[in-house]
Amino acid sequence: MALNPAYEAIGKGFVQQYYAMFDDPALRPTLVNLYNTETSFMTFEGMQLQGAVKIMEKLNSLTFQKIDRVITAVDSQPMFDGGILINVLGRLKTDDDPPHAYSQTFILKPIGTSFYVQHDLFRLALHNSL
Amino acid sequence: MALNPAYEAIGKGFVQQYYAMFDDPALRPTLVNLYNTETSFMTFEGMQLQGAVKIMEKLNSLTFQKIDRVITAVDSQPMFDGGILINVLGRLKTDDDPPHAYSQTFILKPIGTSFYVQHDLFRLALHNSL
Repeated sequence: MALNPAYEAIGKGFVQQYYAMFDDPALRPTLVNLYNTETSFMTFEGMQLQGAVKIMEKLNSLTFQKIDRVITAVDSQPMFDGGILINVLGRLKTDDDPPHAYSQTFILKPIGTSFYVQHDLFRLALHNSL
Repeated sequence: MALNPAYEAIGKGFVQQYYAMFDDPALRPTLVNLYNTETSFMTFEGMQLQGAVKIMEKLNSLTFQKIDRVITAVDSQPMFDGGILINVLGRLKTDDDPPHAYSQTFILKPIGTSFYVQHDLFRLALHNSL
């Protein structure tokens, strides 16, 4: 499969869609549709999870109600299997916690005319380590 | 090709080796051996580069002499083609500049019993955006 020339628009569009779902507690459970039952990997603050069920258990366990998120950079690259590598840098503030910088990396894997999230790495940067 | 069970040790070892070469101006040109002539992609502060020659032109154009680097997190995941996805969060200070947080994502692609860097995304986090 060839490099996808629309990788940049797809990356930016995916990030917008993903966080619209993530940041709304009512929509967060629908993220299950973006992960594969077996072949999706997530590393969340160093915790390794595989498969949509375990990933959603983690995401649904997050208890904050309100997220203020600022995206500072979205960098994407096309991959040789038609996938797309995306790296997001941003800052988020949940409920009354102090703001944190974070980094999140996604690999979108093509499936028919769409994609699923095969790899997802999320890590907060400790404020005092910056 | 199967998932590489040693992905975590390989990720940490690669990061150590890569920055030992990067942070020493005398060794930095040897990074050329880690990239492929055609199939390596780099996004450096939003600038997109393909192939070892263009990547090394960029890396060799960096003029700072001294780097203080602190790695705060290295997260790795195995990939289904035998590759390894690595995300690094850290802080670096070059010469007399103020320290910056940064994020760097690598995808190592297997080649024989070794790997090369197929994807490399580097982005500084602006201090005042954190």
